[in-house]
Amino acid sequence: MDSVTKSLASLSLHPTLVNHTGTNSPATWRDALTTSADGPDSFELIKTLVYKPKTAKTATPVPVVVIAREAASVNSGAIGKNLNLKDLRLASEDLLKEFFSLDKDSLSPLALNETNFSKVVTVVDASIATISNPLALHALSSSATVFLSSSDLLQYLRNLETENAKIHELDLQNLETAAPAATSKPPPKEKEDARIEGSVQIAIGVKKEVDFSTWYTNANMLDYYNVSGCYILKPWSYSIWEEIQKWFDAEIKELGVQNSYFPMFVSSKVLEREKDHIEGFSPEVAWVTKAGNSDLEEPIAIRPTSETAMYPYYAKWIKSHRDLPLKLNQWNSVVRWEFKNPQPFLRTREFLWQEGHTAHLTKEEADVEVRQILELYRRVYEELLAVPVIPGIKSEKEKFAGGLYTTTVEGFIPTTGRGIQGATSHCLGQNFSRPEMFNIVVEDPTDPTNQRKIHVWQNSWGLSTRVIGVMVMVHGDNQGLVLPPRVASVQIVVVPCGITVNTSNETRSKIEGACDELAKTLKKAGIKVKADLRDDKTPGYKFNDWEQKGVPLRLEIGPNDLAKQQTITVRRDNGVKSAVALDNIASTVSQLLESVQNDMFKRAQETFHSRLKEVTKWEDVVPTLDSKNVVVLPWCEREACEEDIKERSGKASEPTDERAPSAGAKSLAIPFDQSRWTAIEPGKTKCPACGNDAKRWTMFGRSY
Amino acid sequence: MDSVTKSLASLSLHPTLVNHTGTNSPATWRDALTTSADGPDSFELIKTLVYKPKTAKTATPVPVVVIAREAASVNSGAIGKNLNLKDLRLASEDLLKEFFSLDKDSLSPLALNETNFSKVVTVVDASIATISNPLALHALSSSATVFLSSSDLLQYLRNLETENAKIHELDLQNLETAAPAATSKPPPKEKEDARIEGSVQIAIGVKKEVDFSTWYTNANMLDYYNVSGCYILKPWSYSIWEEIQKWFDAEIKELGVQNSYFPMFVSSKVLEREKDHIEGFSPEVAWVTKAGNSDLEEPIAIRPTSETAMYPYYAKWIKSHRDLPLKLNQWNSVVRWEFKNPQPFLRTREFLWQEGHTAHLTKEEADVEVRQILELYRRVYEELLAVPVIPGIKSEKEKFAGGLYTTTVEGFIPTTGRGIQGATSHCLGQNFSRPEMFNIVVEDPTDPTNQRKIHVWQNSWGLSTRVIGVMVMVHGDNQGLVLPPRVASVQIVVVPCGITVNTSNETRSKIEGACDELAKTLKKAGIKVKADLRDDKTPGYKFNDWEQKGVPLRLEIGPNDLAKQQTITVRRDNGVKSAVALDNIASTVSQLLESVQNDMFKRAQETFHSRLKEVTKWEDVVPTLDSKNVVVLPWCEREACEEDIKERSGKASEPTDERAPSAGAKSLAIPFDQSRWTAIEPGKTKCPACGNDAKRWTMFGRSY
Repeated sequence: MDSVTKSLASLSLHPTLVNHTGTNSPATWRDALTTSADGPDSFELIKTLVYKPKTAKTATPVPVVVIAREAASVNSGAIGKNLNLKDLRLASEDLLKEFFSLDKDSLSPLALNETNFSKVVTVVDASIATISNPLALHALSSSATVFLSSSDLLQYLRNLETENAKIHELDLQNLETAAPAATSKPPPKEKEDARIEGSVQIAIGVKKEVDFSTWYTNANMLDYYNVSGCYILKPWSYSIWEEIQKWFDAEIKELGVQNSYFPMFVSSKVLEREKDHIEGFSPEVAWVTKAGNSDLEEPIAIRPTSETAMYPYYAKWIKSHRDLPLKLNQWNSVVRWEFKNPQPFLRTREFLWQEGHTAHLTKEEADVEVRQILELYRRVYEELLAVPVIPGIKSEKEKFAGGLYTTTVEGFIPTTGRGIQGATSHCLGQNFSRPEMFNIVVEDPTDPTNQRKIHVWQNSWGLSTRVIGVMVMVHGDNQGLVLPPRVASVQIVVVPCGITVNTSNETRSKIEGACDELAKTLKKAGIKVKADLRDDKTPGYKFNDWEQKGVPLRLEIGPNDLAKQQTITVRRDNGVKSAVALDNIASTVSQLLESVQNDMFKRAQETFHSRLKEVTKWEDVVPTLDSKNVVVLPWCEREACEEDIKERSGKASEPTDERAPSAGAKSLAIPFDQSRWTAIEPGKTKCPACGNDAKRWTMFGRSY
Repeated sequence: MDSVTKSLASLSLHPTLVNHTGTNSPATWRDALTTSADGPDSFELIKTLVYKPKTAKTATPVPVVVIAREAASVNSGAIGKNLNLKDLRLASEDLLKEFFSLDKDSLSPLALNETNFSKVVTVVDASIATISNPLALHALSSSATVFLSSSDLLQYLRNLETENAKIHELDLQNLETAAPAATSKPPPKEKEDARIEGSVQIAIGVKKEVDFSTWYTNANMLDYYNVSGCYILKPWSYSIWEEIQKWFDAEIKELGVQNSYFPMFVSSKVLEREKDHIEGFSPEVAWVTKAGNSDLEEPIAIRPTSETAMYPYYAKWIKSHRDLPLKLNQWNSVVRWEFKNPQPFLRTREFLWQEGHTAHLTKEEADVEVRQILELYRRVYEELLAVPVIPGIKSEKEKFAGGLYTTTVEGFIPTTGRGIQGATSHCLGQNFSRPEMFNIVVEDPTDPTNQRKIHVWQNSWGLSTRVIGVMVMVHGDNQGLVLPPRVASVQIVVVPCGITVNTSNETRSKIEGACDELAKTLKKAGIKVKADLRDDKTPGYKFNDWEQKGVPLRLEIGPNDLAKQQTITVRRDNGVKSAVALDNIASTVSQLLESVQNDMFKRAQETFHSRLKEVTKWEDVVPTLDSKNVVVLPWCEREACEEDIKERSGKASEPTDERAPSAGAKSLAIPFDQSRWTAIEPGKTKCPACGNDAKRWTMFGRSY
C-alpha cells in the first residue's frame, strides 16, 4: 500500500485510503465500502480483468489487462478481435502472481507500474471517463481501497505510457453489441466470458445496463448490512412481502392450517437425527456457543429449517388418528450460512419465509395437500407477482434432503437464460415418522383389532423472500424496478406538472389541490396512491424517482389538464401515456391497473415459453443453453445421466469463473403438464443424453 | 444413584431411572423430564424443603424435612405451630450438606435413610397419597430422576420409621387456610416463605390451586422445548398474538409507521457502540462463533434489541429534514440469554415482539409520539386483553439503558400482589444521534444561514408476547384459562347435550344438526365459533376441555332446547347460565360477548385499584406489600432513596429463596394521572422513606 500512496503522491494525488475487511467478490467489496464510516457516500467499483491470449507454448505471454466499470460486460472475443489477439482466456492465478505479485482479489489498475506496463496490453473502457462518482480501486490489497476521480485514474495510466506502450481506450459496450448475436449453432467460446463472469449482478448488468446491486439500493428495496451476506429489507420491499403474507396466510387458513411459533434454536442432538437431512444442511449451520461471557455446555444451532426441531413435538401431540391432520405453519426467519457469493434476496445468510409442516393419516391425503400448496405458490408468482412459473416434480437428485418427493414451481430469468427455483412443496413420506426416527404413530382406525399402527405421512413446504428477487429480475428494466400493481405498496403516484416560475400562486395551488383531491378520491376507492407534492423537486426528478421505484402508474395534472378536467396516465410497464377524464377516475384507473398486471404477466409468460426449447439431440443441448434457453429433454430419469448432463454441459463452456453460478445444466423440474411437448413413445423415444428409454419431458437449465 | 437403586430394590421397587441435564429449578427440571424420551408422559414433581427451627446456638439442630407436591404452598409458620417448633427458616446449604451430603437441587425424599431419618422431623403432605400420576423424585442428583407411585413413596418412608421417629402427615392446604389472613399489621415473618418460594408457577399455584406450567400445557397454550428457556407457542396462544399484531399494526400504520426487516445478527463493534446500552444487555447476549465447521473471524451477536443495529443506517438514510420523521417498525424475535429461572411468556430466552424506531426533528414531536404509542399499548392491554394497566414514567434508575426517559404501562398480578411491566415506550433523546455516537444529523430548516445542525430526536418502543402471560395470570382461574372474547381464536363453542344411549338416532342427528346450523349462523355473523361434534367424548369432557382452554362462551343444545328452539349460554368468566332463543341468536351472543369482555375488564380493574394503596408512613410500607398490594408513595425521586426502599423492603421479608423474583420493592412507575391521590404540597409533603420533600406519587411494589 505504501508503494501505491507514494506513486500516487508523485503525481500530486492524495486520495482517500480506506481499510476494510478482506473481500473476494464485487458484492463483498461493495458491502465493505458501504458499511465503512470513511470513504465517499457513493462511488463506482472498478474491476481489472487479466486475459492471456493464445500463444506458442514457448513464447512469453503478453497479458491483456482490461479496466472496466464493475457493471460492464466484457466480451473478450470482441476485444481480442479488436486487438488482433486470438482466444483470450481469463488468466490463471499463477500468471497474476508472476506479472503483478497479486491475487485476483487485490488486483487493480494501480498494479500497473513502470516495470510491468510495457509487458502487458492495457485496455481501458472508454466510458470510465464519463463517470462523475469517485472510482473505487483496490490498493493492491483485497482489504484496502483508494478512491480516485476518473480523470485522476486516466492521468495515472497515461503517466505510464511510453513510445511503444500505450493504453487502448475501447468502448466496451459497443464492442459487445458489434459481436455476433447468439444463434442456434455453438457460439465462439469467448462469448461465455461475458455471461459467466461475476454472477447475477453482472449478468443482469449485461442486458439491463445497470448495476444490479446499485439498482436495489436506488430503488429503495434494500440496503447492504455490515454483516456480510445479510441485507436490510426496507419498507419498499418488505411491503411486498406483507402483501404476499396476507394473501397466502388467508389461503392456508382456509385449508385448516394454523400458525404457531417454534424457537429459533435447535439442539445438536435433535438437528442431527436424520442423516440425509443433516448432510444437506450441516455445512451451512450457524452455531451459538457463548452467552454473555459464558461458554454454553454444548453448541446450539440456529434453525436452517425446522423439520427436526418440530417433529419430536408432533410425536408427543399426535396420540390418535383424531389428532390428524395436524397442520402448522410459521412465519419466521432461518439461517443458512452460505459461503458462496451472497446475492440480495436470492442467496442471503438469513432470510424470511413461511414453513408449513403437516401430518396426515394417509399418503393420498398428503399427496393432495402437496399439490394444493404448490398451486398456492403458483398463484403467488403468477397472480400476485405476474411471474410465470412451471409446476413440476424434482428429480431424485434434486429433491429435498430426507424427503420422499419434492414438487416445485420453476421460474426463468430471461436476461441470463437461467432457471430459478421458485418455491417447493415436499412430501416427506414416512421418513421422519418411522420408529427409529421421530416415531409419530397412531392406531389404524380401520383396523377393528386396534393392533395395526400407522406412521403418519408428512409434508413440509416453504416460500421465502426470494420471490421478491425473482420478481425484480423478471420485470425490472433499465429505469429500475417495475412493480406489479397487486403487490405495490404505492400503486399510483400523482404528480403536479407544468408549474414554472411564471405560474401564478393561484394556479399552482389549484393544481396541487387537484392532485391532492385526486389522491383522496382514489384512496377512498381502495387504491394505494400517493400525491407527490414535494416543493423542492421538479416533475422530472419525481418521474425518475418513481420510475426507478417501479410504481405501476403515474397520473399527471398540469394547467391544461385542469382546464380539461383530465389527467395524463403513464404506465410504468410499457410507457404508454393517455389522457383520461377525472370523472369516474377510480374505476378507470382500477381497470388500467388490472391491465398492467395482466400485460406484465402475459409478456413474461410469452418470453418464458419462447425460451423453453424442446431438444431431442445431444448436440443441440449446449448451443441452446448458450442462447439463454432452458432445454426440455425426453429424459431417462437416471441419476447417472443427470450428473453426466451437468458435467458435459458445464465443460462445454469453459473457462468458468469460480464465483459464477454453476454453468452446468441441472434438471430443473419434470413438468406436470407433459402435453405441451411431442408425446413420448414408450420404448421408442430415447434420452438424447444417454440413449436409454425416455420417461418424461424434463427441463434442464443453468440455474441460480 | 447406586445407593438409591439398591435401597429401593430392597423394598422390591424397581422404578424407572431417567438421566437428564442438570436442573436448578422446578421449570428446568420439568423441561428436562418433558423433553426426555424416557420416563412417563405425565407425572408430578415432588419437592423437598428443609427448615431449621430456632434453637439455642449450642444445641444440635433438628431439621424439618417437608415433602410436598411442587405446586403446593408451604406455610412454614403453620407447620411450626403444628409441630410446636419456633421460627422455621429455610435451611442453609451448609446444613443440607451436613445432614444429607447434597445440595438443594439434588435433594429428595430418597435422601432420607436409616442413618439420618431419626435426626430430622419428616413432614409429608397428606395430599400426596391422592396423586395417581407417577411422582418425580431426584435420585440424589439434580440430573437424575426416578418415578415412584405415591404408595411406593409412602412405603419407602414408612419403612424408615422407628419407635421414636415417625413421619408426620399434614394436610398442608388446610394448614395454610387455617393460618391467619394477611392484615394491615405486619404478618408473621414465616408467612413470606409460602409466597416467595419458587417464582410465578408456584405463586399462582398458591391461590389458583393448579400448577401453572401444567396449566399452560393443558390449556394448549405452549409446550416446553428441549432448549432450556425456550417455549413453543402453539396455535392457541399464537392466535392471540396474531390478533394483537393485526390491531396494533393497523394503528401504527395510521401514524405513518412502516414495517421493515433488519438482520438478526449484529457485529460486536456496532453492538458495543453505546456504553450504557451495552452494559444493560451484554450479560445476556448470545454469540454465534461457528458456521458449518468453520470458526467465524469474529463472533457475531444475535440482537437483544436493535437500536445499535439500525441506527448506522438511519445516519445514512437521513440526509435532510425532509427525510424526517423516519418511522420504522419490525415484527421479529430477539434473544436475551437469561440465566435466571425461565418463565413461560414472562422470561424466555427468545421472544417475539415488535420494535419501533423513529427519528424526529424536534423533541416536542418525539414526546408526542412516545405518548401516542403508550396509549396504543394501554389499549392493547385494556381493550383487547381486558387487563387494566396504569400509564406512567419510569424512575431514572429503571429507565431504558441509554435512553432519555421511559414511559410504561404497569400491570398487576393479584394472586401474588406483584407489579409487572406491560410494555415500554422510550424517548432516546439525542443520545444515539450525537456526533460521537451514530451522528444522525440534518440541517436546521429554520436557520436561514444553513449553518446550524440538528441531531435528531429518537424514540424506540416495544411490546412482546409477555402480554399473553400477563393476561393469563390476571384472568386465569382454577379451571384454567379465561380468554377475553376480543383475542380468543374460538369465542364460542357449541356442544350438543342430553344425548344418551336411549336417544334415537333421529333425535341425535337433529341435535347435532342444530348445533352445526347454529355454528354456521354465528360464523356468518363474523363470530369465531366451533361446533364440538366429537362422537367419542361426553358433554362433560367437552365442557371441561373448553373451560380449561378458556373459550369465553359455551352454547348447549339438548333435546329440550331443541323443542323450545333455544340454547343454553354459559359464560366462562362467571359461570352464569341462561336460556336464550335461537331466533336472532347472532345479535344476542354478540352482545353477550361484549358483556363478557367488559365485565372481565371491570373486575380486574376494581381488583387492581383496590390493591393500590396510598401509603405515607414507612412502617406501613412492608406490611402493605406483604398483604399483596402495590404501595403508592409521595416520593422524593432520588435514586439513593429508591435503592434504600428496595433494600429495606427486601430485608424485611427474609429468609428469601434465591430463585424467587426480587422480594424488595422497586419503583414501578410514576403515574401520569396524579389526581387520584391526595395532592402533594410542595415543601410540606415528605417522602416516607427518607423524609425529603416529596415530588410525585410513585408506585412501588414487588415485581416480575
